[in-house]
Amino acid sequence: MTEGVLFGVGLGPGDPDLITRKAAGLIETAQVIAYPTLAGGASLARSIAADLIPLNATEIVMDVPMTTSRPPAQAAYDKGAADIAAVLDAGKDVVCLCEGDPFFYGSFMYLHARLSDRFQVEVIPGVTSLTACAARAGLPLVARNERLTILPGPLPEDELTRRIDGAESVAVLKVGRHLPKLRAVIDKLGLLDRAVYIERASMPEERICPLADAPDTAPYFSMILLTKGADPWL
Amino acid sequence: MTEGVLFGVGLGPGDPDLITRKAAGLIETAQVIAYPTLAGGASLARSIAADLIPLNATEIVMDVPMTTSRPPAQAAYDKGAADIAAVLDAGKDVVCLCEGDPFFYGSFMYLHARLSDRFQVEVIPGVTSLTACAARAGLPLVARNERLTILPGPLPEDELTRRIDGAESVAVLKVGRHLPKLRAVIDKLGLLDRAVYIERASMPEERICPLADAPDTAPYFSMILLTKGADPWL
Repeated sequence: MTEGVLFGVGLGPGDPDLITRKAAGLIETAQVIAYPTLAGGASLARSIAADLIPLNATEIVMDVPMTTSRPPAQAAYDKGAADIAAVLDAGKDVVCLCEGDPFFYGSFMYLHARLSDRFQVEVIPGVTSLTACAARAGLPLVARNERLTILPGPLPEDELTRRIDGAESVAVLKVGRHLPKLRAVIDKLGLLDRAVYIERASMPEERICPLADAPDTAPYFSMILLTKGADPWL
Repeated sequence: MTEGVLFGVGLGPGDPDLITRKAAGLIETAQVIAYPTLAGGASLARSIAADLIPLNATEIVMDVPMTTSRPPAQAAYDKGAADIAAVLDAGKDVVCLCEGDPFFYGSFMYLHARLSDRFQVEVIPGVTSLTACAARAGLPLVARNERLTILPGPLPEDELTRRIDGAESVAVLKVGRHLPKLRAVIDKLGLLDRAVYIERASMPEERICPLADAPDTAPYFSMILLTKGADPWL
């Protein structure tokens, strides 16, 4: 029997309309879908794709504990990979739902690392939060020979300072509870007037404001964009 | 009369199936579309969206000369912006077709800069070549607290060396004729065995190989990915 294929399907930033036609087609015809949930909560990935999931599809849920320690999360992906492998071994494809893009800060990487040497894995790229935030804020990210630096908010203050200083466009992802630290770093560098805060881009609860006016407690799905502004080439 | 809206619509990296549902809907119902061509050649953006363009749509073509000098290209966007403004003033929407994502190294920025203070502009983000290349090459880009550095190939050798050295994941875009220089830089840093070359990701002519084996003359739509490899967190 031919083994099934594991599809890692990027769903984009949250608006179901930003799902690609390829991803939509795979989900609509899926017999088995898989997705993570965080600490037993609802799955954002599943909610983005909800309208496309066939009623009779089998659902493999990977419940990932809320932790920064390695073993418990590792165990959740071990179990998820084993469940998925059993379906693939039985000759059925599995469509794994991923917020944003599977290979851009996506947890699909953990399944890819566990399964790609044994099974055929196909990754369908999705719209990232990076360009969704830029689009919603009306902020061009990079043009011509400009550089773009992408940093996660949890990095230490000195490293953030060093990497933001002298960069051109900067995107800081996973802002969350690190917002006050990030605002202080950016303010110290004299860049606060250029910094824009974006929360849940493309979703109904979207919020966009100058970083100076952002709340101290941000959700995980939030970003700070520092762009160069008007292009001198024009 | 209400003025029209200018839509900057990201089409993704080349496979028409990687167009989002939102972009597809806007193109299918467009009365007026606009797109750039390079030096009188065919438009890649138009070819990606070809199946969706209504037969009776009016098409505004911006013919951008092949040049690195500012005034001729500037003049092409000036004229394109004026043509688009006339349609918007007449109360009709314009759907501008953009390869990849409009704000990620996209020429739509030049229209945005010229028209966004006078008209309502809405940007629809698209799948970037960045994540499309990673998906096709099977290379996770960034996870957890990793950084990603995005550099254009035309940058000078010393700046490329400085920015690649000590970075985590790196994507070099717009490789083109800069391939020998980039390969030399990466080799000198001892990173050649980690570097993957990707050309025309998601298109029928796609090519993926180790950078060491890549041809000296690459097309404009080519990329080098330097990723960290196996995630130690697993």
